[in-house]
Amino acid sequence: MIAGLAHLEAGAGRPAVVLLSGGLDSTTTLAVAIRAGWRCYALSFDYGQRHRAELDAAAIVAATLGASQHRTLCLDVSAFAGSALTDTGIAVPETELAGIPPTYVPARNTVFLALALAWAETLGASDIFIGANALDYSGYPDCRPDYLAAFEAMANLATKAAVEGARVSIRAPLINLSKAQIVSTGLELGLDLATTVSCYQADANGRACGRCDSCRLRKKGFAEAGQPDPTRYRG
Amino acid sequence: MIAGLAHLEAGAGRPAVVLLSGGLDSTTTLAVAIRAGWRCYALSFDYGQRHRAELDAAAIVAATLGASQHRTLCLDVSAFAGSALTDTGIAVPETELAGIPPTYVPARNTVFLALALAWAETLGASDIFIGANALDYSGYPDCRPDYLAAFEAMANLATKAAVEGARVSIRAPLINLSKAQIVSTGLELGLDLATTVSCYQADANGRACGRCDSCRLRKKGFAEAGQPDPTRYRG
Repeated sequence: MIAGLAHLEAGAGRPAVVLLSGGLDSTTTLAVAIRAGWRCYALSFDYGQRHRAELDAAAIVAATLGASQHRTLCLDVSAFAGSALTDTGIAVPETELAGIPPTYVPARNTVFLALALAWAETLGASDIFIGANALDYSGYPDCRPDYLAAFEAMANLATKAAVEGARVSIRAPLINLSKAQIVSTGLELGLDLATTVSCYQADANGRACGRCDSCRLRKKGFAEAGQPDPTRYRG
Repeated sequence: MIAGLAHLEAGAGRPAVVLLSGGLDSTTTLAVAIRAGWRCYALSFDYGQRHRAELDAAAIVAATLGASQHRTLCLDVSAFAGSALTDTGIAVPETELAGIPPTYVPARNTVFLALALAWAETLGASDIFIGANALDYSGYPDCRPDYLAAFEAMANLATKAAVEGARVSIRAPLINLSKAQIVSTGLELGLDLATTVSCYQADANGRACGRCDSCRLRKKGFAEAGQPDPTRYRG
């Protein structure tokens, strides 16, 4: 059994919005959702992130995996910055830190899920996939299961569709997997993981630094899965 | 006692983000928050609404009332449309309808509150004001008290600030007021309500149609408050 598919309801052709950053986790999530029979509408965000190469990766991934549609929404959140991911004046840490790291972007998943909810309702979809993972992750509060459950509860009071009887589900099929299990899931689904960009400071060609938190977690995943690391590192 | 101030905690100079559309309710909410001593950061959205004159009204209101800052965020939600407010191919109803009307915008308050939450966290603010009203309103699900409570619960799991001990509050001081009480509150606070634009199909000069749901509710508010209606109607 492929780990990421273990607890996932069959889509049976139903539409779903899938948050797609172009990294390892969201790409694997999209592949899992498609394999489970969901008709996937991929949603990416251009929010001024310094690792914009992930958007190119997202476009390639969406086309390769056969998403029904892929949209990249521009979000002018520079005003809301205060994050190492959007403010080049704040360094991306290259060693492990205690607590929530400076790469945290204020309320990012809440903003992304809110816009996914809007698109889902317009599409007549009740399901939203997110690649959140609460095991090998950076400690972001908006990746935890209780946060996702609270968002789902709110969403079920928020929309016309929900009031009229649809049941919104926030699906995070990787939430309890280790990074090694995510790597294995991706490979078992035939993904070319070299395409995906996880690095917080990837260069314009998508080449990774190998040192940031996201790179370290990803490297550990390949190592623990006993798989060669196909990531394109720079220099 | 001014109705809108009845149950509102004193701000004592604390910062708060205030959602400001430029209509009667959000303008009154901003005035109430400022009167209660909150340091207000007003947030408006250009989401392709047909009544864009409300954005001019919001700018005037924010400056006149003394908001500490006013930002208008562009949101490219035309893809997510399917609403009479953003799609000129869908008519704004001019008679009362059963159920949630076509002026409903999918997940609008969730998107607005999510972005307010992001800005609030960056500002070090824990309080967000919204002019939602569940008495004389258009029946939108995301104006109801249980929706707002669910958003607040989610927000308290979503952010770094909340995890570190701040308590996010979603404040809707007009939630249980009639439109007449909102009008009275605004007038008692000295607002020039002619500046505000509530009409769903206001013209470029902010002149109202007098016939849409929002105009009808507003008219009823002035009538029931026994006050002359200063709204600028067209034609």
